[in-house]
Amino acid sequence: MNFIKLESAIRDKKSFLCIGLDPDLKRIPEHLLKYDDPVFEFNKIIIDATMDYCVAYKPNLAFYEKLGPKGLVSLEKTLKYIPEHFFKIADAKRSDIFNSASMYADTFYDHFDFDAVTISPYMGVDAVKPFLRKNKCAIILLATSNSGASAVQNISTSSGQPLYLELITEISKWGSENNIMFVVGASRTDEMLEIRRKAPNHFFLVPGIGAQGGDMKLVCKNGLNKNIGLLVNVSRAIIYASSGHDFEKKVSSTTVEIQKEMQLLLEEYKILQ
Amino acid sequence: MNFIKLESAIRDKKSFLCIGLDPDLKRIPEHLLKYDDPVFEFNKIIIDATMDYCVAYKPNLAFYEKLGPKGLVSLEKTLKYIPEHFFKIADAKRSDIFNSASMYADTFYDHFDFDAVTISPYMGVDAVKPFLRKNKCAIILLATSNSGASAVQNISTSSGQPLYLELITEISKWGSENNIMFVVGASRTDEMLEIRRKAPNHFFLVPGIGAQGGDMKLVCKNGLNKNIGLLVNVSRAIIYASSGHDFEKKVSSTTVEIQKEMQLLLEEYKILQ
Repeated sequence: MNFIKLESAIRDKKSFLCIGLDPDLKRIPEHLLKYDDPVFEFNKIIIDATMDYCVAYKPNLAFYEKLGPKGLVSLEKTLKYIPEHFFKIADAKRSDIFNSASMYADTFYDHFDFDAVTISPYMGVDAVKPFLRKNKCAIILLATSNSGASAVQNISTSSGQPLYLELITEISKWGSENNIMFVVGASRTDEMLEIRRKAPNHFFLVPGIGAQGGDMKLVCKNGLNKNIGLLVNVSRAIIYASSGHDFEKKVSSTTVEIQKEMQLLLEEYKILQ
Repeated sequence: MNFIKLESAIRDKKSFLCIGLDPDLKRIPEHLLKYDDPVFEFNKIIIDATMDYCVAYKPNLAFYEKLGPKGLVSLEKTLKYIPEHFFKIADAKRSDIFNSASMYADTFYDHFDFDAVTISPYMGVDAVKPFLRKNKCAIILLATSNSGASAVQNISTSSGQPLYLELITEISKWGSENNIMFVVGASRTDEMLEIRRKAPNHFFLVPGIGAQGGDMKLVCKNGLNKNIGLLVNVSRAIIYASSGHDFEKKVSSTTVEIQKEMQLLLEEYKILQ
């Protein structure tokens, strides 16, 4: 999938929501634990309950690898279950030398059929290049939502810019807004404004709404561009909306609420016209 | 395993060699492909042929994940096969928010029984903290061996120091030389000298010798400290020493050669006395 299709899906659904599929056996509804593969059953219910209101799904690899080989089987089944027209992100935050990065790219693109992979920028272009295939996309960490992030990412460089902005100059040599997105956390809206100025056309993947407390209105104010340019991820607030038998309904109603908020914002910024 | 035991193993074996277990089905000897689990058979032969001449093994996760769920089974079997007294490194180069990083730590430490994991520093302390358990160790990327690395890692900061040195100041708040190592590539010996000045007591994991062309003498000149402080990794030059039926012998003789070179250097620097 490419960004033109992603933008078009957002306009159709009036939603720039990405749902994080991060199944934790300690938190999924107890009545699902009787299944052979409770992780896949959990994901299937979430996908069925949310697919009309979101445009992307983002499994975080940490949750699947923790379960050993059978976790990867659950992930394979989940990827096959997500309909073709969704944007599928492997939240893997990998970074390695070219040879190993190419192997990760084969794994995520060929084996699992993901459209995009999150990547740390610290190792430079070699670690990113293998992910820039046709109609695929590297999503590079710039300003992440965690509390310790800015102690590294905002280090002041000799040009006077903080590191996260200086990196945009370097990353613009590696690829373009057609095959690179940036991770910009919802808790980093000051940085988001600066990044939007320097990268007016790139899509941002924005984690940190919901359980992590980010403000959707401020994210839109500082991050939206004429092609939308935002994919906001919500994980825990949706997938753990309830742990009882009303789980499916609660997941669905929480997702609808978020979609409605997004629609209102898209209308307010006159982006749907 | 802790660093005191690692140093003692190095003194006993007169070797600071770590072997990268990076099995590529396209490159392993053809006669091994008939086995149910050729990756494990390959690793087993390498471990048997090299265990007297090295102190650590380092599987790179990219090579196992590429094989899907069965790759993780091969990795599980490999970790069980490596004797207890070896230092076992998961070359995973992960980095994630605290919640997800904790899951990766559970996976690598509890499920696989690794002693250490390689980590990218870009997300800050949250991404590293879960890996700093008792007798376990985070190995943080500082100056990596790949060609594109310095365009990011040597960005000049406002203190006048390059980023990789500035990061040492920040990382010293996260842990100490008792639970943190640094990745410093064999192609980055100028940087290694600077890093050794600023981090006199930390162990360095040094990739880039062998197939990547690094110079062992210069690595020792710029990196050794009184507690040795170096763990030099060789992967391809050892594990693909031959693809024929003499594979086991060639792997062993190549490893012995490298161990002898290391012993001479340890004697030259009067570290074995």
